[in-house]
Amino acid sequence: MLRPIEWLPQGRVRFLDQTLLPAEERWIETDDYNVIAEAIRRLRVRGAPLIGIAAAYGLALAAQRGDASDPSALRRAAEALLSTRPTAVNLAWAIRRMLAAAEGAGDASPMREALEAEAIRIHEEDIEANRRIGEAGAALLPAGCNVLTHCNAGSLATGGYGTALGVIRSAYAQGKLSHVYHTETRPLLQGARLTAWELQREGIPATLIPDSAAGIIIRRGHVQAVVVGADRIAANGDAANKVGTYPIALLAREHGIPFYVAAPTSTLDPSLANGDLIPIEERSPEEVTSMCGLRVAPPSVQAANPAFDVTPAGLISAIITEKGVARPPFEASLIAMVSESEVIARG
Amino acid sequence: MLRPIEWLPQGRVRFLDQTLLPAEERWIETDDYNVIAEAIRRLRVRGAPLIGIAAAYGLALAAQRGDASDPSALRRAAEALLSTRPTAVNLAWAIRRMLAAAEGAGDASPMREALEAEAIRIHEEDIEANRRIGEAGAALLPAGCNVLTHCNAGSLATGGYGTALGVIRSAYAQGKLSHVYHTETRPLLQGARLTAWELQREGIPATLIPDSAAGIIIRRGHVQAVVVGADRIAANGDAANKVGTYPIALLAREHGIPFYVAAPTSTLDPSLANGDLIPIEERSPEEVTSMCGLRVAPPSVQAANPAFDVTPAGLISAIITEKGVARPPFEASLIAMVSESEVIARG
Repeated sequence: MLRPIEWLPQGRVRFLDQTLLPAEERWIETDDYNVIAEAIRRLRVRGAPLIGIAAAYGLALAAQRGDASDPSALRRAAEALLSTRPTAVNLAWAIRRMLAAAEGAGDASPMREALEAEAIRIHEEDIEANRRIGEAGAALLPAGCNVLTHCNAGSLATGGYGTALGVIRSAYAQGKLSHVYHTETRPLLQGARLTAWELQREGIPATLIPDSAAGIIIRRGHVQAVVVGADRIAANGDAANKVGTYPIALLAREHGIPFYVAAPTSTLDPSLANGDLIPIEERSPEEVTSMCGLRVAPPSVQAANPAFDVTPAGLISAIITEKGVARPPFEASLIAMVSESEVIARG
Repeated sequence: MLRPIEWLPQGRVRFLDQTLLPAEERWIETDDYNVIAEAIRRLRVRGAPLIGIAAAYGLALAAQRGDASDPSALRRAAEALLSTRPTAVNLAWAIRRMLAAAEGAGDASPMREALEAEAIRIHEEDIEANRRIGEAGAALLPAGCNVLTHCNAGSLATGGYGTALGVIRSAYAQGKLSHVYHTETRPLLQGARLTAWELQREGIPATLIPDSAAGIIIRRGHVQAVVVGADRIAANGDAANKVGTYPIALLAREHGIPFYVAAPTSTLDPSLANGDLIPIEERSPEEVTSMCGLRVAPPSVQAANPAFDVTPAGLISAIITEKGVARPPFEASLIAMVSESEVIARG
């Protein structure tokens, strides 16, 4: 199983530059947290769980530096990493865990070790969470089903294995899944580039479609379930995910097929009452007006490029976490999955 | 006002190669109907009303040839033009009108003149129809509204002026319209390339969005109406249009904003009881797996590329034609717009 990021014994991190996939598989090695921050900002590493893990490794790198005993240096690194992207709450969650580990540690040398150990633990726990999500999600799917997914919520979006693609992997391994329809996911084509690449490596039968074709594919009865990831889930179950998720959820309801969100509990944000409060990242219009470096729209055309949308809880059949399957009403079922201390820390 | 195709006095036709827009404005001149057929197939001319007009000019060109008095030669040309694209019924409609004009004419020379005159008439009538559609549609819009449109249903999709963009043009001219949101329209980017180009030429304030962003834009309350064109409308009002139209119609219903289809009556197909009977063109997977000539998906990835989808009549607030605004139930209102002889000819 692919791990898109790794801690190296010499106090370095290496990660796969996802912007170059599938044409090129280039790994970047660094001991500088600023390189990690820039990689998150530029989507070299992306996906809510993965950017949490990358930020944790970034702080572990910051702690390797000479000024590690200076708490303000660690705080500066935390702020730099936190400011990279606003929507995925996993980033804040991982940084909070790392800062708590730093506080719990003693002087410089134990702190270095504590942060390295905590980052690796965050990574390993995420992979374990994905496997549990995969099993729990696969159990929900009917035998012989076709599934539609959007964007990439696979190994490349997590510590490894994947959330939505974890469900798909597990279901395929169990012989329950026949075919995957996956959207290309404009503007940055995470579906056409990354999900296609992952599914092909696994030999899972799949068909790539334009985002706009989800309607006709579902209306024709080609899929029996939708499974997607999430970047932040509010206390009421409203879920932010890649832009275009919400229309697919409407289509699923219209055609009576279940719409599942697969995400670790690190994606829950009980501090937000509902999805309207989730900050939605607005990315550069250039991503829409140009493609592969070529300008497609006329010069000076205005474009909007919201990177996420919010699917209201009412359209979600279940939220699949590593602690079990949450069903509506989510207020109760989700809170039960986050320990009391966590609710307080996050709130 | 731009006319994307023109009959030239010397028995030639010139048309704008829309595949090169907006980077290049190249006109192609020909006296060969095969060039017209190839241009339709390759989307150099596209849009349901325009491909009807182009086919009519193609038959007028065929009639200029030495073998014009041979009815089988004209029939061969008609078949070649008809086979180019399956979904837009305007193609069959225009060819039927041209063949009827040929039958009504006498020997070679009057037939040439009759076909030239009929093709020009089809073109002029379409522009007039668009203007009426524009007026009728603008009357439906509230003052100061923002409108969302999909694909390109503008001058470039018609004889000139446009259907959905005709409504937008008329509303803007009346000072009723504040802003247009328009989708890029994957895979061939008719929105990013063509609608953007047309709106910019007119100075109409507009924002380009990825197809997948229609959900968040509508959910945020940014638009007060959706207006799109159509490629074929069944007797019950089900409307085929560019893939991605159906999910937008669902969004409009969910958020209580009207969803209008703007199309001339040449787009009606009373011979089909409902939209499930409309043939949906499946185009090359290459259009999805590559962009601007660059491969984006991994090699040998499978892709589906349905060019259209069908919006059920139940999601359509009104169909705006040159003969007036049809309201549900469409069975009655649409049939009333097509004369009895036309119903028989089409059926």
